[in-house]
Amino acid sequence: MGNPPPDDSLQQSRQVSIRKFLTDLRQVLPEDQIVSGADEVSRLSAVTQHRSFPPQVYVYPACTDELSVIIRLANQHSVPVYVSSRGRNWGYGAATGTPGTSVCIVLERMNRIISVDDTLAFAVIEPGVSYRQLHEHLAKHHSGLWTDCTDSTPEGSVIGNAIERGVGFTPYGDHFGCLCGLEVMLADGRIIRTGAVFDDQSPTFHCHKWGTGPVLEGIFSQSNFGIVLQAGIWLMPRPEQHISILGNIQRTEDIFPTLDTIRKLQLEGTIQSKVHIANDIVNLAISARQDVAAVKGRLQPDQITRIRNQHGIAPWTFACAVYGTKAQVKASRKRIEQLLRHTTSLHVIRDRNVIKLRRIIQWSRRVPAVAWLIRRVIGKTPEVLSAVEPLHAITKGVPTEYFLKHGYFRNSANCPDSNVDPARDGCGLTWFAPIIPNTGEHLRKLIDITKPLFERHGMDFYLAILSLNPRCCVTLMSIYYQKEDPVSRQQADDLYLELQAATQNAGYQQYRTGTLGADELYRRCPEYGELLSRIKSALDPGEILSPGRYGIGGR
Amino acid sequence: MGNPPPDDSLQQSRQVSIRKFLTDLRQVLPEDQIVSGADEVSRLSAVTQHRSFPPQVYVYPACTDELSVIIRLANQHSVPVYVSSRGRNWGYGAATGTPGTSVCIVLERMNRIISVDDTLAFAVIEPGVSYRQLHEHLAKHHSGLWTDCTDSTPEGSVIGNAIERGVGFTPYGDHFGCLCGLEVMLADGRIIRTGAVFDDQSPTFHCHKWGTGPVLEGIFSQSNFGIVLQAGIWLMPRPEQHISILGNIQRTEDIFPTLDTIRKLQLEGTIQSKVHIANDIVNLAISARQDVAAVKGRLQPDQITRIRNQHGIAPWTFACAVYGTKAQVKASRKRIEQLLRHTTSLHVIRDRNVIKLRRIIQWSRRVPAVAWLIRRVIGKTPEVLSAVEPLHAITKGVPTEYFLKHGYFRNSANCPDSNVDPARDGCGLTWFAPIIPNTGEHLRKLIDITKPLFERHGMDFYLAILSLNPRCCVTLMSIYYQKEDPVSRQQADDLYLELQAATQNAGYQQYRTGTLGADELYRRCPEYGELLSRIKSALDPGEILSPGRYGIGGR
Repeated sequence: MGNPPPDDSLQQSRQVSIRKFLTDLRQVLPEDQIVSGADEVSRLSAVTQHRSFPPQVYVYPACTDELSVIIRLANQHSVPVYVSSRGRNWGYGAATGTPGTSVCIVLERMNRIISVDDTLAFAVIEPGVSYRQLHEHLAKHHSGLWTDCTDSTPEGSVIGNAIERGVGFTPYGDHFGCLCGLEVMLADGRIIRTGAVFDDQSPTFHCHKWGTGPVLEGIFSQSNFGIVLQAGIWLMPRPEQHISILGNIQRTEDIFPTLDTIRKLQLEGTIQSKVHIANDIVNLAISARQDVAAVKGRLQPDQITRIRNQHGIAPWTFACAVYGTKAQVKASRKRIEQLLRHTTSLHVIRDRNVIKLRRIIQWSRRVPAVAWLIRRVIGKTPEVLSAVEPLHAITKGVPTEYFLKHGYFRNSANCPDSNVDPARDGCGLTWFAPIIPNTGEHLRKLIDITKPLFERHGMDFYLAILSLNPRCCVTLMSIYYQKEDPVSRQQADDLYLELQAATQNAGYQQYRTGTLGADELYRRCPEYGELLSRIKSALDPGEILSPGRYGIGGR
Repeated sequence: MGNPPPDDSLQQSRQVSIRKFLTDLRQVLPEDQIVSGADEVSRLSAVTQHRSFPPQVYVYPACTDELSVIIRLANQHSVPVYVSSRGRNWGYGAATGTPGTSVCIVLERMNRIISVDDTLAFAVIEPGVSYRQLHEHLAKHHSGLWTDCTDSTPEGSVIGNAIERGVGFTPYGDHFGCLCGLEVMLADGRIIRTGAVFDDQSPTFHCHKWGTGPVLEGIFSQSNFGIVLQAGIWLMPRPEQHISILGNIQRTEDIFPTLDTIRKLQLEGTIQSKVHIANDIVNLAISARQDVAAVKGRLQPDQITRIRNQHGIAPWTFACAVYGTKAQVKASRKRIEQLLRHTTSLHVIRDRNVIKLRRIIQWSRRVPAVAWLIRRVIGKTPEVLSAVEPLHAITKGVPTEYFLKHGYFRNSANCPDSNVDPARDGCGLTWFAPIIPNTGEHLRKLIDITKPLFERHGMDFYLAILSLNPRCCVTLMSIYYQKEDPVSRQQADDLYLELQAATQNAGYQQYRTGTLGADELYRRCPEYGELLSRIKSALDPGEILSPGRYGIGGR
């Protein structure tokens, strides 16, 4: 992005530096923690994104000391490194770098769960810890505490997602907001702790989000100012009761007043979970992929309607959850029903419903007549209903691969039953995710701006809406394309850039960028980009850490 | 405070710079916005704190353009300036500076309420806007929205308190947490907006707390990296119902299990307001000042018990509030009663109770027998009961001067009925406020560490506990001393330093420092102090803005 290709002599001198760096690194790091073979690197740098900057080398430190050595050598040889936690941010570039980086450090082996505090409800973990690992650890040893998760892979990094400011489902779904107390390695190898604590034994380190003095936690998120070595993450005490609420909005236009009502319920505190809203294409991508496999190009409105009707999929669906004592849950459920029933058919899901539903769906797989009966009685096919259990689970922070199915939409590869990995399987998927204020009016405007761009490029308009806080939401769009087809790749690129320009023109900030799109972030607020550059120069004058990431450095 | 006094020639050259700065400033700023007369400066720099660094000049810009001019001239003449919003942070140094600053800029004339968004529930305001102003504006024009406030003066700055990370009462009581979208002037006069928005018309600027790219909001709080010109602040939609709950803990020891229960209720989301807990000295300072006026030195335990019994003051009291629909409030009230009744006598306060109580108290002022009857029937004197109305009010964000009475405790001046100003009235009061994890065990440890220090210096142990979030709380201690008495001042200084050392040894971070105590913040985490210095050098190489504030720069 942006960077002109370096001339040959510069290129050669860089290669010499990298070779020296590797030679030195091999003296101190076990062989299996350095991967530089072309085939292996190619496998590790698989992405779903339409454009990427694969490194030449992957390095896997297993502890802070090893990372220190790598960073010292990177400084010594002036070799910029790109740092990734576990590299599972598919759609945003996975474990590939920026144009100026040839070495990618993946922290997945630094995966200690250092401590869990049952009283104050937090864990201290390393960036290699996955959602699955944290969830299983809590379920086994600290059953009174829940983690949050995402609806992407259980193999994703808890810290990686949090410092990218990812969103989950429970009241702890603002992942960055739930971080508290970071230990960070700076570009010169020095280690600091946020909040001016004296050591990692400070009893307030992981309780006092803002610390003393300026709050620096934020500068280590969506940036390249340091490497987070460990962090406190707040956990949710298991409530007395929990229900998830699924809604179907049968009339397309009703999404706008419904979003306004949802905002009201969030602002007043009735809905404390995050709210996820999905359009029909999202549900088709998850539950009806087989039905669209034969369709070339964009699904036409009548085709969408037909498949929707066939499966009982509404134009819009949403999910939220309520937690508390039985009386609190009842009061909030009634309030939600009272305000939302005008536009939405609501289904309250409890653990016991899920178990029953699972049995019925299993039965329907053996007896086709049961499937037919389910469609008649419940109004949805077993394929669609099978999403209820994982959806209910993630509102309790139980990670699932289920929704990753969407990565295989419009792609020839089949989604495996386990170990889902759309990058490995060659799926073409890039995410673009602007933020809008949480109002029907802004949602309408966003759709008016973006949907025609998808249509012009002959692509399906996939839109998921995830609330970040009661006042704003992420509008996540999936750009599906054919990885092996240069025309399709170009189309994805054109659409991406057009979406970015159009939403920026409307004043909508971006939720997150991966290894694409960062160049555009500060084009129209250059003094802000300049401020970030000044901080980068102060903290990392040699531009060792992920130069160019989020548009900072790398020029 | 660390800095050795500058030698004479340096001192002289500084004075020359300041004179030139003033000469130039008078060319461009109206005369009444510059105050340099000794008497007037002395009046403006009145503090309650035992030590302070008064400036020679006060400057009052009325708009951003005027502030730009001041900062340009400060750069031109290398004159460091200290910036204060409204200078009402009594107990933390008010509108006085750091040792290196001779010019204090007070932003109280920059007091526009720029906009209020009823749909998304936020206001955009300048740093001169007070709690009173914002509250009155909302009550008049946007009655569906509440501000939060503090229990200090209604004249305090909303933004000033938020960037100092002050705490209030409602679910919006984490004031910094409720800021969203800052416009900031840097030391070179350039203006940036946090979150990489393109202009102040971005619809997501004040909705999307984290913005795009690194989160810089935090670096402008408790620091000296920039001057906040305006900010979005989230407001609370008026709930269908609101009750405050006041608790009396009759056995001193019961505070520890009670705090554990309160934490449980906060973690589970039943208590969403902040919780304020007060020991007996706090209540005596507010409601029984006359009774202790005759006592010289520290109140002895038997004296405290006698006055407590006389007024019906419990060893510990606390206040919280519940908001929601009627059914939600009922469910949460029941849950609170169920868990807390073992250690606490609880009183639920509704608006209608407050009105009745006000009438009874007024009656008792005319008819002494009524006062006697109140004491017999309700168990408290009218003096103590008169705190209920303002306490109930601040749980709705209605600011009050009532609790500022505590500033006059152990002081010869009488607290006026209105326009309360303990600094003007010569009261001696310094605040020291460490953070502890929100557990009974840590509260016990904190008291064990700090109370003996107060006792050794013959001072009353004033302890208020304010929850910051469910996992930690501020433990605010008031050091009362006699301003005119050098021995008493020295005692206050000794106690302050001993408290700081003792709590830091225990690993407790400080909530906030004013113009004192900043030198100690990074002594035992020097690499962190060094990181802050590097950022300061990058952003303000000339050390123009508040050098030394929060221990950053000024060496």
